Amino acid sequence: MKLEGILPPIPTPFASDESVAHEQLARNLEKWNKTSLAGYIVMGSNGENVHLSEKEKEEVLATARQAIPSDKLLIAGTGCASTRETIALTEKAAKLGADAAIVVNPGYYRNQMTMTALAHHYLRLAERAPIPIIIYNLPSATGLDLTAELVAELSPHPNIIGIKDTSGNLPKMGDMVRTVDPGFVVLAGSASFFYPALAIGVRGGILALANVAPQQCLEMYRLFQQGEIDRGRELHLRLLPVNQAITARWGVGALKAALDMLGYYGGVPRSPLLPPNEEQKRELRAILERGGLSGNGE
Amino acid sequence: MKLEGILPPIPTPFASDESVAHEQLARNLEKWNKTSLAGYIVMGSNGENVHLSEKEKEEVLATARQAIPSDKLLIAGTGCASTRETIALTEKAAKLGADAAIVVNPGYYRNQMTMTALAHHYLRLAERAPIPIIIYNLPSATGLDLTAELVAELSPHPNIIGIKDTSGNLPKMGDMVRTVDPGFVVLAGSASFFYPALAIGVRGGILALANVAPQQCLEMYRLFQQGEIDRGRELHLRLLPVNQAITARWGVGALKAALDMLGYYGGVPRSPLLPPNEEQKRELRAILERGGLSGNGE
Amino acid sequence: MKLEGILPPIPTPFASDESVAHEQLARNLEKWNKTSLAGYIVMGSNGENVHLSEKEKEEVLATARQAIPSDKLLIAGTGCASTRETIALTEKAAKLGADAAIVVNPGYYRNQMTMTALAHHYLRLAERAPIPIIIYNLPSATGLDLTAELVAELSPHPNIIGIKDTSGNLPKMGDMVRTVDPGFVVLAGSASFFYPALAIGVRGGILALANVAPQQCLEMYRLFQQGEIDRGRELHLRLLPVNQAITARWGVGALKAALDMLGYYGGVPRSPLLPPNEEQKRELRAILERGGLSGNGE
Amino acid sequence: MKLEGILPPIPTPFASDESVAHEQLARNLEKWNKTSLAGYIVMGSNGENVHLSEKEKEEVLATARQAIPSDKLLIAGTGCASTRETIALTEKAAKLGADAAIVVNPGYYRNQMTMTALAHHYLRLAERAPIPIIIYNLPSATGLDLTAELVAELSPHPNIIGIKDTSGNLPKMGDMVRTVDPGFVVLAGSASFFYPALAIGVRGGILALANVAPQQCLEMYRLFQQGEIDRGRELHLRLLPVNQAITARWGVGALKAALDMLGYYGGVPRSPLLPPNEEQKRELRAILERGGLSGNGE
Repeated sequence: MKLEGILPPIPTPFASDESVAHEQLARNLEKWNKTSLAGYIVMGSNGENVHLSEKEKEEVLATARQAIPSDKLLIAGTGCASTRETIALTEKAAKLGADAAIVVNPGYYRNQMTMTALAHHYLRLAERAPIPIIIYNLPSATGLDLTAELVAELSPHPNIIGIKDTSGNLPKMGDMVRTVDPGFVVLAGSASFFYPALAIGVRGGILALANVAPQQCLEMYRLFQQGEIDRGRELHLRLLPVNQAITARWGVGALKAALDMLGYYGGVPRSPLLPPNEEQKRELRAILERGGLSGNGE
Repeated sequence: MKLEGILPPIPTPFASDESVAHEQLARNLEKWNKTSLAGYIVMGSNGENVHLSEKEKEEVLATARQAIPSDKLLIAGTGCASTRETIALTEKAAKLGADAAIVVNPGYYRNQMTMTALAHHYLRLAERAPIPIIIYNLPSATGLDLTAELVAELSPHPNIIGIKDTSGNLPKMGDMVRTVDPGFVVLAGSASFFYPALAIGVRGGILALANVAPQQCLEMYRLFQQGEIDRGRELHLRLLPVNQAITARWGVGALKAALDMLGYYGGVPRSPLLPPNEEQKRELRAILERGGLSGNGE
Repeated sequence: MKLEGILPPIPTPFASDESVAHEQLARNLEKWNKTSLAGYIVMGSNGENVHLSEKEKEEVLATARQAIPSDKLLIAGTGCASTRETIALTEKAAKLGADAAIVVNPGYYRNQMTMTALAHHYLRLAERAPIPIIIYNLPSATGLDLTAELVAELSPHPNIIGIKDTSGNLPKMGDMVRTVDPGFVVLAGSASFFYPALAIGVRGGILALANVAPQQCLEMYRLFQQGEIDRGRELHLRLLPVNQAITARWGVGALKAALDMLGYYGGVPRSPLLPPNEEQKRELRAILERGGLSGNGE
Repeated sequence: MKLEGILPPIPTPFASDESVAHEQLARNLEKWNKTSLAGYIVMGSNGENVHLSEKEKEEVLATARQAIPSDKLLIAGTGCASTRETIALTEKAAKLGADAAIVVNPGYYRNQMTMTALAHHYLRLAERAPIPIIIYNLPSATGLDLTAELVAELSPHPNIIGIKDTSGNLPKMGDMVRTVDPGFVVLAGSASFFYPALAIGVRGGILALANVAPQQCLEMYRLFQQGEIDRGRELHLRLLPVNQAITARWGVGALKAALDMLGYYGGVPRSPLLPPNEEQKRELRAILERGGLSGNGE
């Protein structure tokens, strides 16, 4: 399994009554499948993992697996608050055909989450998991920021293959690149710093932006790799406001509204997340236009 | 329903294989029932709510309801990440006999948790819940700190009856006391500031310390109310290190170890929480002794 | 020297061209002198210490000393970024008649301010200072929060006599009260938590609020000491919005505007601090009225 | 005046009694002058600006001006707490031959430092300053983080020519690059993210690392500009631990110790800053060696 390239963490579509819209999920994937995206994160933070019941998680994975061709990765978000539940969900995900699991660090008891506790959690999981584990560092949601030392310590485990880091802490990511096991992959967790992170050696990105601008994310990556740094930077800077709108600024609700505007199915997030109001939608539409994103989602 | 006095947020006991130890839960409650505690929080943060499966939550509530006499409150922790799941669990808790539900604010998407989103969440829940709702402000776990303005705005709703605030922000709690609806109760969420908070008008405390030192917490409260401020302060200061050990410093693992040391059943927390190691246990034992807590749990 | 009671950290009055208004300083002190305030902090944060030149500091102290009777304390803010400059200014303050020096912890290089470095700073100063030293913990300005352990460690030094803590962290203040040397005094650094802090044993307060409401602060203190907890609390809650307006919310500019509204001289702060705009002034005036503060400054 | 390239913020050398060591300052500059460094920051944070008296600041500038050839920039750190003192020091710096002034944002009253207050401060200064102003964003010391919006708003002023941003917030720096006036220069404020920041369009770096590794910093910059991204990255990653040691980890004391180890004059920092202890020095020496830095300072 080769972990690199661009992967969107796809949203879980809901109908207006907040029930899972399986057909729309399949249809969105059909569109993304036409691109060179390396695969998908299903039930990550943008997939509202924490809003899905135990049963819904299995159903969403089953639908996704059917819609994702075998040459694209299906990476399932299986992080739960407890180690035992995380193991159980990872085992289910493996049975349902996930290629790997991405596991957010458990932050509810963050004051007790010493490096010892976190190492214990990930190693116990890695021992038991039938599929490879990708660490998911998400300080904005968990209040925990994994250190480069911990990641380096976990990296030699054969069943822990990489990290998605959303911290945006470039020096720390540099330390990771410098100290992890050669086979371990560091991925940028946001388009807000994916482009400069390429300069320090990340091998790809798990980017919410790739949901609404898959071609542009792929192009940015290609331009950097081909040494066209200035053209890549122009694209990066142009897309920054789009990325901010659908992530830190307005979150999943705006990501879904943007998908609706661009020819995908977006729909509503589950409460307490709210869809953008009319004024925010107008501003969002203007931001998409200034970012050069047009209605056919490509 | 009268919400005041001292209530411990009880831990959920696990056997050494991390399965729920229902008998031990009942036995602990039998001991606490002999005191003047006003009631119990079941499945709060110290009850490892987030570590219990959907099914386990129902089972724990059923056991607790049987063991708790009708003159003591059973308040169920029913906060989930989504509003719909929170409503569903609150409905189940009501059927299982809970007197009220305590609902932690949903922090995973904290950047999107505007006051509008949070008000929407609590009001939608309050409309649907068959039992009264207590707001639970827990910044250390959720990264969100509810404002006094929001609490004052929610306080007139007839089905929102109080708040457990663990922020330790006394000026903010003072603002709450000053601005909430007369029938709305402000409770201190930690023994680290329960005693001084009495001076600004809180009507009780939901205190992890009350698990291991119920009589002392009740005594502290009584002394303050009877104007014996200095004697109450001495007790408060003497118990501060105990409280720190079982909360901010070492958390649920230490709370459980302390219960074991004091004649209750403690057992292990669920991973990734860890029990204290041998050195920590020695130190914990010394702290309990200096706090004047002896082995019979009373 | 007896350190207890209520002391205001007085603002340094400026004329409209931002030059020091010495006469107005003397006149304000004359008014405050008629109360039972225990003394004054001159050149603290509210005195815009950091906005005064080396020469101005000496001149302000000289004026203050003349206007302050010998039965009230003159405590000079002498904390500078370097230990050597702090020592030099403390020596000057002593020569100019200050009874003690209050020394804010140096926060510019906060990442390097280990407990070792801070202990070294305060002990070196205490060895050299001709007058007693009061530690000043001000996390909102310095980004440093002194631990109870450090304070307990410094407290036996005969020339370190107390701390003004503005952190509002009541459990930490409780730990200080519990662990410091018997002769060492813990003072609350803000009226936002002065009243509840009395319940844990603070011996007084250095309160910005005491500039605009000296009688009310003295009354609050008296009521608590006489066991009239409820009446004291009412006063505390009523004054909370006043205190917030002149501290955290609008700062020194609003404190000075409030003084102007109440019959003292306030004037402008030095830039980059700004005076409140017209709308803020209207709101401030309403807040003062609701707090029961009338125009004669008493 | 062309603001680009690599500039070290040089330390102010002190003798063992903490007095300014002017000769050593001149001698260090002579060595650095042999490189292609674009110039120097004198009396920045690494120059212990806040530890210098008013008189010492003038003397240090005079010595530096003599030792710095006219084809290299002398940029003086003139930020003080008040606007008036900042203006006065900037005027003195101009008279003493500084080419520009770099002005840290005033953070002591950070809660009052609204964007309005900060804009007012910088614009009032820019109007009066006889030399160009460079904004200096240093959240680690000031607790304030200037927004891209504020910087964009200030950027058209003809006398505000650039910003040194040490936040390490690459998305925000990208926003700055995207929105500032064309003539306005964004410089990276730390070698911890200088290399990836080149990918988003910064035009140079003010780097503490350039004190101890000027040639390597220049080489990193050259490699990136010539498209040798991988070789530049290797150099960046190799030097990361050196940079951390002399900045965030051990600060100015370690920077000075490293200079001593590399053939420059380092000496001691002023208290409360401490020099590294023996164990830290041993580790520092090992870090320098692993970073490929040898004793002749080149």
